[in-house]
Amino acid sequence: MSARLEVFAVDGLPEIMPGDDLAELIAAHADVRDRDVVVVASKVVSKAEGAIERPRDGETPAQARARVVAEQAVRVVAHAPWATIVETRHGFVCANAGVDASNVPDGALVTLPDDPDASARRIRDGLLRRPGVGVGVIVTDTFGRPWRTGQTEVALGVAGVPALRSEIGGHDRAGRPLDVTEAAIADELAGAADLVRTKAAGVPVVIVRGLAFVADEAASGRDLLRAGEIDLFRRGRGGLASALVAEPAAFSGPVDPRDLWRAQAAVEAVCGATVRIRQVRPRARRPGTELIVDADADATAGLAAGVLLALLVDLGYGAVLVETLEAPTVWAGRPDPGV
Amino acid sequence: MSARLEVFAVDGLPEIMPGDDLAELIAAHADVRDRDVVVVASKVVSKAEGAIERPRDGETPAQARARVVAEQAVRVVAHAPWATIVETRHGFVCANAGVDASNVPDGALVTLPDDPDASARRIRDGLLRRPGVGVGVIVTDTFGRPWRTGQTEVALGVAGVPALRSEIGGHDRAGRPLDVTEAAIADELAGAADLVRTKAAGVPVVIVRGLAFVADEAASGRDLLRAGEIDLFRRGRGGLASALVAEPAAFSGPVDPRDLWRAQAAVEAVCGATVRIRQVRPRARRPGTELIVDADADATAGLAAGVLLALLVDLGYGAVLVETLEAPTVWAGRPDPGV
Repeated sequence: MSARLEVFAVDGLPEIMPGDDLAELIAAHADVRDRDVVVVASKVVSKAEGAIERPRDGETPAQARARVVAEQAVRVVAHAPWATIVETRHGFVCANAGVDASNVPDGALVTLPDDPDASARRIRDGLLRRPGVGVGVIVTDTFGRPWRTGQTEVALGVAGVPALRSEIGGHDRAGRPLDVTEAAIADELAGAADLVRTKAAGVPVVIVRGLAFVADEAASGRDLLRAGEIDLFRRGRGGLASALVAEPAAFSGPVDPRDLWRAQAAVEAVCGATVRIRQVRPRARRPGTELIVDADADATAGLAAGVLLALLVDLGYGAVLVETLEAPTVWAGRPDPGV
Repeated sequence: MSARLEVFAVDGLPEIMPGDDLAELIAAHADVRDRDVVVVASKVVSKAEGAIERPRDGETPAQARARVVAEQAVRVVAHAPWATIVETRHGFVCANAGVDASNVPDGALVTLPDDPDASARRIRDGLLRRPGVGVGVIVTDTFGRPWRTGQTEVALGVAGVPALRSEIGGHDRAGRPLDVTEAAIADELAGAADLVRTKAAGVPVVIVRGLAFVADEAASGRDLLRAGEIDLFRRGRGGLASALVAEPAAFSGPVDPRDLWRAQAAVEAVCGATVRIRQVRPRARRPGTELIVDADADATAGLAAGVLLALLVDLGYGAVLVETLEAPTVWAGRPDPGV
């Protein structure tokens, strides 16, 4: 017999105020049992922790919002006239850095919790004080995603329950090794919790009961964040401009020959000019952003070099020097902080 | 009192074979009730429907896989030496076009169902034949996602249950209009179902009971697909090369002045050359891919033009003609099929 989950909201919680003890409130309104996963919307965590910003003197609401989003963001991931996707200081990629103005007093802006793992741990610690209760806690928020419409609830902070259910290295029923299979169960738990509530209904805490899991004291929402080097969507629409101007190299190691071949083939197809690469190597110590153009190259060679430069940056290379036979010598990106 | 969900696997299903009637098998192994949502892994749907490819004579397994992935894909979304993300002919964006070799006889490759909505409807129709049963059916697969590690189960095909729970135009508890909030509940249902199984355990069908929903005869997995024009992540790493060479324009309308300003500012910062745009307009009728370079432009102007061209393509513009004062006249993209 397989596992059977129950998913239900904790009813009757009051409006959460700064300083509230969420664990105490949850325990007072729900019969939290051993092995329950308690899923808490980050909005109430932020409110309880006072993660609320207000407009400064003279700021319009729009100005205050732009300032707070900028403070929470470390880089722009995608840019369009109708939306800006950023990476937050925590490493989450989402619209508007998760800054939210709904269900809060007029003018105030709720930011994501400062440290969602710590928030989850605090709630868990509070619940663990009750005898016989070994629980997981997940702090969640509502994020959009590329390619698919609608938002889903995802896990920002995790305590006590694993973020991932790894089947890497496992085998299928015929004994063949499985491809990389690692279920993001903390995100699936967050989504399951969302099914029993709506934003307007005011049910910020949901319990998932019946999950088969082994308590994981080292669990973290960071387990769900993909490292930049293996992120194929580090930049979205408009992100190339930011990368060319301001972003340090995603890779500064040697260029993969397959990448170089791909970029060269594209330049040749588009420009009708062959770009024979003399060498590509990590850029030497040279401060500032600049492009080196051979004086005797012509416009066609320049055009090809410009496209090649953009393609290499699109492929994730930053501080590379490209020496070619026909085209100008170019390099892309700004210096690594360390060189 | 809020809704209470139960999530449980349908135990005891046999290994699914081509021609099997999934609705009949599900009904024989589970007490499906009114308002249940039946979540079915696409793998068994594909098997029942015979969506299985085999290597052709002389093909190695790797060659067969590459061929089948290419047949299922309409474009490359992101390209890296270690992975290829494509858009399938259905419109799903995923690794390897969803082609899978686990839990199938050696050498065979399971493709995604031909029409997942139709598959979901067929299963639903089969279950509806039983009196008093009004159900939703979701056909799912396991997809990775940008920025976050791990895979989640997502909805490919939907029947009877809404794919999205729209709160657009709704109000929060203080009466303020909510920002765009549209929960992708079919994906959250798919994820919830994944919590009671593992790939190796062979439980392809899960029932979610207790969801509050109104039967939606027009529901479709396509409701979850984001249109290309508003997709900020139409291309990932390495996608610019494909776009420059082969991809028709994502936009062929007028260039947004904010985009143009952004591209110009980036060119100026990187190349140290001002590119004053004379005009940007939809490309005139001109067959083939070509770049027009003024004979009297120099290498620096060419470089700036090459970068500008790449930036406009990165912003999603394809068939645009850029006439500048200093730099070569360039255009990017190939002709629209219609011109």
